[in-house]
Amino acid sequence: MDAIEVGVLGATGMVGQRFVSLLARHPWFRLTWLAASERSVGKAYKTVAPWKLNTPIPGGSAERMVNACLPGRGPKVVFSGLDASVAGEIEGAFAAAGHVVVSNARNFRMDPLVPLLIPEINADHLKLIAEQRKSKNWKGAIVTNPNCSTIVLAMALAPLRQFNIRAVVVSTMQATSGAGYPGVPSLDILGNVIPFIGGEEEKMQTETLKILGGDGGRAPYPAVVSAHTNRVAVIDGHTMTVSVAFENRPAISAIVDAMTHFSGRPQELWLPSAPQPPLVVTDAPDRPQPRLDADLGGGMAVTIGRVRECPVMHAKFVALGHNTVRGAAGAAILNAELMHAEGMLQ
Amino acid sequence: MDAIEVGVLGATGMVGQRFVSLLARHPWFRLTWLAASERSVGKAYKTVAPWKLNTPIPGGSAERMVNACLPGRGPKVVFSGLDASVAGEIEGAFAAAGHVVVSNARNFRMDPLVPLLIPEINADHLKLIAEQRKSKNWKGAIVTNPNCSTIVLAMALAPLRQFNIRAVVVSTMQATSGAGYPGVPSLDILGNVIPFIGGEEEKMQTETLKILGGDGGRAPYPAVVSAHTNRVAVIDGHTMTVSVAFENRPAISAIVDAMTHFSGRPQELWLPSAPQPPLVVTDAPDRPQPRLDADLGGGMAVTIGRVRECPVMHAKFVALGHNTVRGAAGAAILNAELMHAEGMLQ
Amino acid sequence: MDAIEVGVLGATGMVGQRFVSLLARHPWFRLTWLAASERSVGKAYKTVAPWKLNTPIPGGSAERMVNACLPGRGPKVVFSGLDASVAGEIEGAFAAAGHVVVSNARNFRMDPLVPLLIPEINADHLKLIAEQRKSKNWKGAIVTNPNCSTIVLAMALAPLRQFNIRAVVVSTMQATSGAGYPGVPSLDILGNVIPFIGGEEEKMQTETLKILGGDGGRAPYPAVVSAHTNRVAVIDGHTMTVSVAFENRPAISAIVDAMTHFSGRPQELWLPSAPQPPLVVTDAPDRPQPRLDADLGGGMAVTIGRVRECPVMHAKFVALGHNTVRGAAGAAILNAELMHAEGMLQ
Amino acid sequence: MDAIEVGVLGATGMVGQRFVSLLARHPWFRLTWLAASERSVGKAYKTVAPWKLNTPIPGGSAERMVNACLPGRGPKVVFSGLDASVAGEIEGAFAAAGHVVVSNARNFRMDPLVPLLIPEINADHLKLIAEQRKSKNWKGAIVTNPNCSTIVLAMALAPLRQFNIRAVVVSTMQATSGAGYPGVPSLDILGNVIPFIGGEEEKMQTETLKILGGDGGRAPYPAVVSAHTNRVAVIDGHTMTVSVAFENRPAISAIVDAMTHFSGRPQELWLPSAPQPPLVVTDAPDRPQPRLDADLGGGMAVTIGRVRECPVMHAKFVALGHNTVRGAAGAAILNAELMHAEGMLQ
Repeated sequence: MDAIEVGVLGATGMVGQRFVSLLARHPWFRLTWLAASERSVGKAYKTVAPWKLNTPIPGGSAERMVNACLPGRGPKVVFSGLDASVAGEIEGAFAAAGHVVVSNARNFRMDPLVPLLIPEINADHLKLIAEQRKSKNWKGAIVTNPNCSTIVLAMALAPLRQFNIRAVVVSTMQATSGAGYPGVPSLDILGNVIPFIGGEEEKMQTETLKILGGDGGRAPYPAVVSAHTNRVAVIDGHTMTVSVAFENRPAISAIVDAMTHFSGRPQELWLPSAPQPPLVVTDAPDRPQPRLDADLGGGMAVTIGRVRECPVMHAKFVALGHNTVRGAAGAAILNAELMHAEGMLQ
Repeated sequence: MDAIEVGVLGATGMVGQRFVSLLARHPWFRLTWLAASERSVGKAYKTVAPWKLNTPIPGGSAERMVNACLPGRGPKVVFSGLDASVAGEIEGAFAAAGHVVVSNARNFRMDPLVPLLIPEINADHLKLIAEQRKSKNWKGAIVTNPNCSTIVLAMALAPLRQFNIRAVVVSTMQATSGAGYPGVPSLDILGNVIPFIGGEEEKMQTETLKILGGDGGRAPYPAVVSAHTNRVAVIDGHTMTVSVAFENRPAISAIVDAMTHFSGRPQELWLPSAPQPPLVVTDAPDRPQPRLDADLGGGMAVTIGRVRECPVMHAKFVALGHNTVRGAAGAAILNAELMHAEGMLQ
Repeated sequence: MDAIEVGVLGATGMVGQRFVSLLARHPWFRLTWLAASERSVGKAYKTVAPWKLNTPIPGGSAERMVNACLPGRGPKVVFSGLDASVAGEIEGAFAAAGHVVVSNARNFRMDPLVPLLIPEINADHLKLIAEQRKSKNWKGAIVTNPNCSTIVLAMALAPLRQFNIRAVVVSTMQATSGAGYPGVPSLDILGNVIPFIGGEEEKMQTETLKILGGDGGRAPYPAVVSAHTNRVAVIDGHTMTVSVAFENRPAISAIVDAMTHFSGRPQELWLPSAPQPPLVVTDAPDRPQPRLDADLGGGMAVTIGRVRECPVMHAKFVALGHNTVRGAAGAAILNAELMHAEGMLQ
Repeated sequence: MDAIEVGVLGATGMVGQRFVSLLARHPWFRLTWLAASERSVGKAYKTVAPWKLNTPIPGGSAERMVNACLPGRGPKVVFSGLDASVAGEIEGAFAAAGHVVVSNARNFRMDPLVPLLIPEINADHLKLIAEQRKSKNWKGAIVTNPNCSTIVLAMALAPLRQFNIRAVVVSTMQATSGAGYPGVPSLDILGNVIPFIGGEEEKMQTETLKILGGDGGRAPYPAVVSAHTNRVAVIDGHTMTVSVAFENRPAISAIVDAMTHFSGRPQELWLPSAPQPPLVVTDAPDRPQPRLDADLGGGMAVTIGRVRECPVMHAKFVALGHNTVRGAAGAAILNAELMHAEGMLQ
């Protein structure tokens, strides 16, 4: 099989850096094109990316010249780590021009014709693309992945849909890498907690229902989510406490069982980035912890712990996922892998 | 007015250090007696206390000889920062011998005849003492303050009792000073979150109801509390997100109003350690934060922020308090101040 | 005595915030004027200052309108916490217009006619001002304090001048508050060390010699300083290890003695911000530590520990000072206090 | 080639955990035996090791029964991560009984007949073993690696021996994983620096000279080292600033050149754990940094940055190495690899 050429929009940012790192040795995709904002164009990637990963810039990208974010250039398949302030316009232009944009930006997530995809949960939402193309008159397409904290929550809830979830109260403890670079000032987070992340609670409360919903997400899942989002002094890994109420209260053992055996299309298809299993359910009393567990499954697994009765709702537990791998770049790459496996990247 | 002599049991621990620091310039109490475990007895306090506060050991205590925790010695009024493993036996012996033990330990908190006191909330629970003395045949008495995270929650909920609280889901982000010294290993908390604190969730779920309850706490408040407790990389200050459901849903403005105007016996009596006001309600979008707000009111105020609708429960907000001042040593001192003002320390 | 009205240039920055906080209850100075950059002008201080201190904005300043940095307005005495990019021009204009500018900015520090003042060390450098006025044709004057890390080093070295210092190798571990706000991104400092601070090593290597020098600093002290400067995950307090070689090697006990008994004009004059003593020499084996010792003497004392033989140089020790109090705003206020005591603010 | 069976003494500690992790997929060694203190004996490894690495316990070790540290049992080759309080006696007994003990403990490091080995620097020190066996009447042998901070320093200095090093002043910023578990309490290191590590300065000042010395280390290198050792809030990676004086001052470019081209026996022999190159010299202005660079070369490379003139000594730079890989378990494994390549493990 020939490798599929791919590019990255917004390659110098924190999510862009993860794309560059994760795509360096990808079995299907070959990264040949990097694009970023005006001030980086024409310069070698290593001179303009404020690289913050603890592995060196991959050899193939370090010296690569950065391009402008102009549609029609670059490979057909482009990953987008663009900032929301510019992603709407640029991604739309790329899709119109025939590119398949696999985006991490929030701009199109809630568009009723754009899949908000987590391949383990709603691989069938890809069917929206046909209508998307027709309705928007795009030669290409846009597929999005959810917000970093939403992905972790949705992964934890997906196996519980069989019990008819009615309400969820979630409180997050989120890593600073989720805010990009320079992002959170050190004076705000050293020895501190910031109990607010702009727009994050709304995203968790709405995106989750589209993801879990039917008909390509056009029929939102009939539950209510209430989110408290907080920033803590962690580099990578969003931890969250979750209380859930159901239509029919399941036994705790049934919940653990459903989570433990949860699996989806990526696992069936053995997609390269698919974690096996997608949910790691631990019975350690004090886990998951971001420093110890965020990298499980190459950063693509979500870890669940402390599943127990909730005296107010029905069940409660702790969930953790790597926010820039499973929660961003890795999520988009898994989306592209699914599309390729389904023959949608040709 | 002559100063009342007081002592501290467990003076070398983290809570004991706060007692020593806060009592150094107290207008009513004079600290004249320090007691700790066997290995410290007979030694100067400064040579055995692993002092971890950012103010020096007060002059009056630095050279003071440490005594054994033996009843009958020392002043009538003793504060207890003893570890729970020994507090039960020692505090009981002191009370039997005629001491008034103002304790921060958990051992007697849920005893139906021992006040679990937050003077702003349940000053009337002190009436339990008469029955306590008779029933236990104690010449002295024991009064306790709640667990550090429970105090913050109870303070936030107290003004909402008028709306008939039905259910509370709380998720904490707690400072490491709450775990004592050496306490939490740095390898467990640097860049990390530990989603478990032994026994803490049970304390929040039961102590809160006794505190808010009637008849000296013998009629627990008729609500249900579900707690998720987490440790984060903060030195002082427990932050928590709280969702509350009521019998009759109040407007958010009514909740803010009730919190803003909340006041109790300590404020009426202008007790020396009473914060004015006890609850600081902020409208900043990203507060309270432990680094910036834990010291408000000399560490005795609880700060509330982000009061807003909860789509699952009715209202949600963030609460913060200083865990070793309002949540431990300062709480006990306020208890003693109330008792003195009510003529119970003579 | 009537209070002297003072103002603050650059009032919204981190150093400016310290000025506002420290001047709130000053016995001699009354803060009546706040100035900052264009985008803050005409707005209430509390709405434009990203307040990062753990005490609230003082009542007198919270609602105060922010002015433009225009000379001729505001009180005669102004403290400057301006950024170096604008301080040169603005401070010069203020001095020309008759203001006494007590500055923390670096721009005029190495000007041969501007005192680089640490009142304990070189109070006599104030005599430069007469020549400064004449030569620059200024009606007012400029006095500066050193860089935050330089102050700590100079304070530690000052009492050792009697032994004829020849060479100093210093390696710092500096707090993030020294970099202002937003300053150091959290991704750069959480669980990390940054072994570089732009321009800092040069400042330590040159400013120190001017401070310790004679003839108003025009005859630099005849020693050589080599600095390694590093940023660590600390909020307040610069710690540094220092190795020193002397012309005539003193005994360690003589060094400890000289440091312990060090004192200067601020102590003689009992200036309001003068720490008594200015150097706290500890014999604890593991001190000073920023979290425990930075606030000594109201943040104005420098703490020294671990004074011992250096097998390469002659002696070595650890020094610590609060970088935004003794190292910035508090230093400037002490300078102004000295000038007032010497009759130079009338 | 058949795999060589190896065991680990002190397998549950922090260094022991690194041994277990690094040996899990070693091409030459097969880990078949784990030993630890009495309270772990007879239990499954995963139930007694407080695992603190961010990768799961390797499958082959998780369920393995822990043995007592008794000589004569287990494989001929044993790695030792024992605590110094017990290592002397146990390692001696193992060597006497015929085991080859590849130790990370400090007890035998300065023994004149025990190699203090860094294979890139002093592979020839292995010749001590013949005399060691004869003199101590051991059937086996002991080989040690240096203290974690010493290794980083010695690696940086080794290529400079050609310029005749005379004096070194080093100031470290060390990670908390070097102190084991529970090790450094979080209250001591969050937002703090501890300018003292017991015994560490002496080790750096003496071990370095033995390592760089001739005649198996019996002729210490004729230089003087002065160390300041500090603990900072970092998990893995010791950073240090170094100033060096030479007999004949080399140009900075000659130093960079010597470091860049430094190589030794492990590189010649392509030992499995040998980093290629052993020293990574960076010209980035603000590197090395522990979060970004400690893992280079699989944690076995030492990174050097900011090589420049020192106005007091001759040259100065920053060095960084991973303290539990290159500085402990990885160092011992490289030692064993060298011994195997030299035919000394048969």
